[in-house]
Amino acid sequence: MIKAGILGYGNLGRGVEAAIKKNGDIELCAVYTRRDPASLTIATEGVPVKSVADLDGGEEDIDVLIICGGSATDLPEMTPKYAALYNVIDSFDTHANIPVHFENVDKAAKSAGKAGIISCGWDPGMFSLNRLYMSAILPDGKDYTFWGKGVSQGHSDAVRRIDGVLDARQYTIPVPSALEKVRNGENPELTTREKHTRECFVVAEDGADLERIENEIKTMPNYFSDYDTTVHFISAEEMKRDHSGLPHGGSVIYSGETSDGVNHVIEYSLKLDSNPEFTGSVIVAYARALARLNAEGKTGAMTVFDIAPAYLSSKSGEELRAHSL
Amino acid sequence: MIKAGILGYGNLGRGVEAAIKKNGDIELCAVYTRRDPASLTIATEGVPVKSVADLDGGEEDIDVLIICGGSATDLPEMTPKYAALYNVIDSFDTHANIPVHFENVDKAAKSAGKAGIISCGWDPGMFSLNRLYMSAILPDGKDYTFWGKGVSQGHSDAVRRIDGVLDARQYTIPVPSALEKVRNGENPELTTREKHTRECFVVAEDGADLERIENEIKTMPNYFSDYDTTVHFISAEEMKRDHSGLPHGGSVIYSGETSDGVNHVIEYSLKLDSNPEFTGSVIVAYARALARLNAEGKTGAMTVFDIAPAYLSSKSGEELRAHSL
Repeated sequence: MIKAGILGYGNLGRGVEAAIKKNGDIELCAVYTRRDPASLTIATEGVPVKSVADLDGGEEDIDVLIICGGSATDLPEMTPKYAALYNVIDSFDTHANIPVHFENVDKAAKSAGKAGIISCGWDPGMFSLNRLYMSAILPDGKDYTFWGKGVSQGHSDAVRRIDGVLDARQYTIPVPSALEKVRNGENPELTTREKHTRECFVVAEDGADLERIENEIKTMPNYFSDYDTTVHFISAEEMKRDHSGLPHGGSVIYSGETSDGVNHVIEYSLKLDSNPEFTGSVIVAYARALARLNAEGKTGAMTVFDIAPAYLSSKSGEELRAHSL
Repeated sequence: MIKAGILGYGNLGRGVEAAIKKNGDIELCAVYTRRDPASLTIATEGVPVKSVADLDGGEEDIDVLIICGGSATDLPEMTPKYAALYNVIDSFDTHANIPVHFENVDKAAKSAGKAGIISCGWDPGMFSLNRLYMSAILPDGKDYTFWGKGVSQGHSDAVRRIDGVLDARQYTIPVPSALEKVRNGENPELTTREKHTRECFVVAEDGADLERIENEIKTMPNYFSDYDTTVHFISAEEMKRDHSGLPHGGSVIYSGETSDGVNHVIEYSLKLDSNPEFTGSVIVAYARALARLNAEGKTGAMTVFDIAPAYLSSKSGEELRAHSL
């Protein structure tokens, strides 16, 4: 059994917990929290909730620490810190800062004889992996990534910060005609606006100026101004009834030539009922690989690019060759 | 530069040759043939065509030998034989015999300090890889593989062997309603007949009994009797004009739950203008990995399951993390 600990019990922490239950060879040993442990009830019976401070001595009996803190601010601190004490895995997704984060985790892990995997999930993660496989197989080609239909938590939060907004949910939606062109191997040049639309469902305060809110959303730089955005005002009841899930998904589509006029299209697509449960499932499979690789003597930082697929599976090489190849 | 040799110059050998031209770090050094080398003209100028016998001493200056013989009868002999002399890669696809073939190549390669990759292509190959990733991430789920629309060379050959048939092309076609159910996460139980249909284009001899030919096709055991098959008789000119390509493709679709009623669908799909050129492209990316791994000291047999994705790419780890993750 691989012994796992979860640090942080938000959406992702609960997703990881759900994923661990589906894997017979991985055992959840503890959830670590910055909150008062007594205030937290988790979904797995008999598993202790501990203080994050308990991790500090490096003496917790776990093979892998799955770090489920916030990506932007928590992970750059947490992952290198705990990489000096445990094998660690995170879902760091600030693309521009990945090289620095990798270096920090690598240095900490190597000096402690530990291993770490960063930026694990579906994007970065499975989408990255597919971009790599596709471009390695067809070097003369081009990749496209579409996200959605799904809830973007960052964009939902941005709308919630507008004055007069009580709650909000933002869906990112690929433009069907753009998807179609890419799938047909037409290799179109697409602007941001041509690839995705954004749809917002907003619960406003009584008497709020809806026109102002809609305008503030649609003109918000970075988040909305480059997109065609639709805004719907709904009641708190409708929000709860129709928009309480966190579905997501998307596609990586690659089109490439092997000789003049001979084209190939490769597509990898996800339709996810729950973004955090799927992300958690990817992380748990890589946590298995991480524990195995460190047991074999591997130290330092890795990404999904560095890990042979067989390490993710609970099956042996013989079984995989006989039944999956 | 990685120095590659191609053994066998049929459809696949030519596909590998086309793929090598798209990769700046891999050089075709020679094509080896069982035919008279003087009788063969290849597409790459300045590259020698040699006799297969030239390989026997193990003294050819190549990093990788790409073996493009026939899968059923040639590869079980050829790949272990040359694994004792060179790093080798093949596309062996007789699923039931993969374990034995792996053992034979492993033994030969290990004793010579060489490495080998077997069963590389898209199925087995990229489809297998996706089945592994999908089932490792979502262990509580089910995979479906659909092939087509595309030309099955084995089925085309089977029709050609019928008395009175001059030429034939067989297309394997997924049943749209079955695909739809699987994509919707319905996890249907599907019979062979419910998954694929078969469509044959046949050029018959003048005066041949078309009804008998059609009946022999439709009732042929293993190949056609379990499928709904359509037969069209066409002229040799129509065959040449409309059916001279070798397009293929297909989808691996996986549906799995992470908790009660929370379902996820993952799909990997290929639409290929040329089956041999795409298969050749997969093989060439893995040939790069093979040369690198052996240079690092790795010996013995491997499959796509055993190779970390980064080895396939001509880019460095830093570049991949900065731009593809």
